[in-house]
Amino acid sequence: MSTTLKFTALLLALSLCRGLRHDYIDNYIDNYIDEVTEEEAELVAQPSKYGSLWPLPQKVQLSEVSFKLTSSSFRIVDAKDSTAGPSCSLLQDAYRRYYEYMFGIAKRQQLNKGRRTGPSELTELQVWITSPDSECDSYPSLTSDESYELSVNQPYAVLKAPKVWGALHGLETFSQLVYEDEYGAKSINSTTISDFPRFAHRGILLDSSRHFLPIKVILANLETMAMNKINVFHWHIVDDQSFPYLSRTFPQLSQQGAYHPYTHVYTPADVKMVIEFARLRGIRVIPEFDTPGHTQSWGKGQPDLLTPCYSGSKPSGTFGPVNPILNTTYDFMSQFFKEISAVFPDAYVHLGGDEVDFTCWKSNPDIQKFMDQQGFGQDYSKLESFYIQKLLDIVTTTEKGYTIWQEVFDNGVKLKPDTVVHVWIGGGSNEEMGKVTAAGYTTILSAPWYLDYISYAQDWQKYYKVEPLNFNGTEAQKKLVIGGEACLWGEYVDATNLTPRLWPRASAVAERLWSAKDVTDINDAFSRLSVHRCRMVDRGIPAEPLFSSYCPHEYKGI
Amino acid sequence: MSTTLKFTALLLALSLCRGLRHDYIDNYIDNYIDEVTEEEAELVAQPSKYGSLWPLPQKVQLSEVSFKLTSSSFRIVDAKDSTAGPSCSLLQDAYRRYYEYMFGIAKRQQLNKGRRTGPSELTELQVWITSPDSECDSYPSLTSDESYELSVNQPYAVLKAPKVWGALHGLETFSQLVYEDEYGAKSINSTTISDFPRFAHRGILLDSSRHFLPIKVILANLETMAMNKINVFHWHIVDDQSFPYLSRTFPQLSQQGAYHPYTHVYTPADVKMVIEFARLRGIRVIPEFDTPGHTQSWGKGQPDLLTPCYSGSKPSGTFGPVNPILNTTYDFMSQFFKEISAVFPDAYVHLGGDEVDFTCWKSNPDIQKFMDQQGFGQDYSKLESFYIQKLLDIVTTTEKGYTIWQEVFDNGVKLKPDTVVHVWIGGGSNEEMGKVTAAGYTTILSAPWYLDYISYAQDWQKYYKVEPLNFNGTEAQKKLVIGGEACLWGEYVDATNLTPRLWPRASAVAERLWSAKDVTDINDAFSRLSVHRCRMVDRGIPAEPLFSSYCPHEYKGI
Repeated sequence: MSTTLKFTALLLALSLCRGLRHDYIDNYIDNYIDEVTEEEAELVAQPSKYGSLWPLPQKVQLSEVSFKLTSSSFRIVDAKDSTAGPSCSLLQDAYRRYYEYMFGIAKRQQLNKGRRTGPSELTELQVWITSPDSECDSYPSLTSDESYELSVNQPYAVLKAPKVWGALHGLETFSQLVYEDEYGAKSINSTTISDFPRFAHRGILLDSSRHFLPIKVILANLETMAMNKINVFHWHIVDDQSFPYLSRTFPQLSQQGAYHPYTHVYTPADVKMVIEFARLRGIRVIPEFDTPGHTQSWGKGQPDLLTPCYSGSKPSGTFGPVNPILNTTYDFMSQFFKEISAVFPDAYVHLGGDEVDFTCWKSNPDIQKFMDQQGFGQDYSKLESFYIQKLLDIVTTTEKGYTIWQEVFDNGVKLKPDTVVHVWIGGGSNEEMGKVTAAGYTTILSAPWYLDYISYAQDWQKYYKVEPLNFNGTEAQKKLVIGGEACLWGEYVDATNLTPRLWPRASAVAERLWSAKDVTDINDAFSRLSVHRCRMVDRGIPAEPLFSSYCPHEYKGI
Repeated sequence: MSTTLKFTALLLALSLCRGLRHDYIDNYIDNYIDEVTEEEAELVAQPSKYGSLWPLPQKVQLSEVSFKLTSSSFRIVDAKDSTAGPSCSLLQDAYRRYYEYMFGIAKRQQLNKGRRTGPSELTELQVWITSPDSECDSYPSLTSDESYELSVNQPYAVLKAPKVWGALHGLETFSQLVYEDEYGAKSINSTTISDFPRFAHRGILLDSSRHFLPIKVILANLETMAMNKINVFHWHIVDDQSFPYLSRTFPQLSQQGAYHPYTHVYTPADVKMVIEFARLRGIRVIPEFDTPGHTQSWGKGQPDLLTPCYSGSKPSGTFGPVNPILNTTYDFMSQFFKEISAVFPDAYVHLGGDEVDFTCWKSNPDIQKFMDQQGFGQDYSKLESFYIQKLLDIVTTTEKGYTIWQEVFDNGVKLKPDTVVHVWIGGGSNEEMGKVTAAGYTTILSAPWYLDYISYAQDWQKYYKVEPLNFNGTEAQKKLVIGGEACLWGEYVDATNLTPRLWPRASAVAERLWSAKDVTDINDAFSRLSVHRCRMVDRGIPAEPLFSSYCPHEYKGI
């Protein structure tokens, strides 16, 4: 972490002048401005000495020595001793992808016409997978080694990583080091980087139930996750509103429960494509099938799955949570999760378990009788736990681990030691993190990162300032925090606005979960993130602006 | 306004189930939810008897008798007695545009293979301009007649309008009456509509200074304005942050003041294209060149235009508002606004005049001396008025009318009787409307419609519920309210997110300004707007969702 670099050409001319129109902000009739703090107003985009690196690597040594890169000469190649060779299509695909990011598709046509390379030209990035098993054909997991070391120097740059996962991150980092000098020539400075993530689980939740998300949108956002070193796609695939997952075992679920049985479903081929697209970018796909609440759409295609609600002594015609007192329920869940465990390769499945409304259960005389028999009294959380316990046992037989929303833990359900407890309730989330880890469970944090809540001004700063380990607990407890997730619930987002709403706001979370704990300089972050955002735009992603500014190449869509 | 219609096929299956995840909303650590009222949560999308008409016409009579439309037979033609014939390219263009909206580009290839039309088929819409001057080759204006009458019946439908402007609105309305029946056939019901706007000035402000907006984005939004019967594009073209307007007279202004002198400017050809594209859709283009504040970018290309600020007895190197004490300032403004008046055909130009910061003027000894000479004492608003008065006189010589932000009126500047005072300050905007109209000036309202302020949930309802005439004043005063504008200031929007952030939120303002005062049923609005939003999506506009739901054809982009 030494000398200063000039990334002038790539850097934004961020406007220094702040309009005054907001002087009247306090007067504004229904002003929605919660947190336009002075600090936010005062951010000035000085070029960062770390250029546009995002998230910031753990160790960076930059020098002022720079090399040119030309599209005709530059190549990304397997190092001689790499354990991943030309047969590793994950890496070969990545080489192509990053070559195009760096040089653009158009310029790729240029051929090397026997031009001699200059003395200050970098012509090769050698990618060297060092571990006997590169994991090229595996799926990434919670315990994947994502570390890498990058050395940019002549005669060639070297990217060393034990596994392909680290190599993918290193390629992204390398591409972030490339900038255009004042004559438009691609350049890179001599650099040494040693990098690894602070947290192993760095996720984004997308919700394809409240609005159906076309595959194209999901893939574009997986692509963007990789640019931000996010490694988990938490796919909240079904919910009350719709059931777009096309189940081979129970096709009626989407036939009846999707917004449309043909145009608004994910076929097995779609799901496979999402998983493979993610794998090629080092991203795990963790599906969530949330029960016993949030299941209205399940009931449409699976009769008797949901609890019939009563109005007085008669069924009202409406339905509540999954019916926990029928054997058929558990037969269904066994078959269903058997399919899920086969379709989704990740070692974890998210089982939900949040926000169970007891009103319907309370109204149903059969449920009441069952409560009596079981000796639950009027404590319906015991009935909820009864259901969840049986569900967890079912899922355990599929040899999957599970993640559950915090209520399941709060209600005292017996959990496997490797259960991941997902903390999402804002009030008291630090306390909750303390409790969960004190009980010995691993946990992920989402409470401060509900990106569906929007507000005026630069809310990315709020996300950025979160410190996940800021709770009372021992060092051992802190180690149980395996990461976090930014959640973009789907009430107000679909294909029209999801991508700009997610980026670069989720990038703030990405750096918090990847970079060292002491990476907290908000001005430096603003500078790097501003350029990172324009880089995403350059790569075709409509990432929205942080503040008044411009990108050298504005977004081409509308 | 009679019988009920079934628009089942086109109507959305809006989800009836509301997720429970927001039960914890009050606990949410930094919850940004200001106005998730019960009412908002309870909106249920019952099909409206007015289908998807938006904004709702003044008088609608619908019948249950329906006709089919086929792309092979249906034609939009000039009525025999119309004063606008085939030479009126404004209408001919509009016929093509609306044909494509209704039948899609792909289907346009189908040819009429001599098929006989059925008895319940509608084959023709005759467009009949009744006034001797159709205004086909004119520009729309504040006094344009926008009324039309539409009769859908056999053997043909008739759209009657005094001028082309009404015909354009009537074509949009006709296209909104077309729906797909359950077999996918295009249908329309027998209908009689008599329509005209409640307010003459229905505008949207876009800001191309804080972020440069590519021409493509501006055109797409003009297209969408027409779908919402918005008739004013208030182009806040320059400001502190950048000066993208390429002036023929003063090319240095954008050469030095734009974010980039080539890629981030509007050339004369660009401006011409925007104006003509708007005209073809009945939209006025009112440019704003805001002075004396908000002019930092002007100073870069025009030396001595801005006031040098002082730090003690020396110039600090920074600059303040336009320098009001130099003759050269007024020479510049004369030449500049002479150009502007020639480039922009509208009868009005917006001169800004808001938020003048006196700090710099106060620091400058020459200004202080001038204040003494003029006997202004320490009242810098007198200096501001001095400047504005001279500017208004200059603009008056160009034979343009002007619009100014409310401060100019508040400061007691002498205004021409036809001046439009633009009310934008939220606190006390009703009072301000009362004062402005009591003084006899026409006014437009923007204070409650600052769409750059975003918040969680359905803020369109807040915009919808505004009643512009809800201030104390005589009937004569109320008549001086000529309309309003939704403002989308540019700090946080550019090409990546502007369009979904604007639509359908601005649609709420559009209906408030077009439809009758008593059109206030929020449930009916929700139903119609939900379908209207999907129609915009269908036409390629990424208009964001109102709430959990789906569109038959989701947005194709990301």
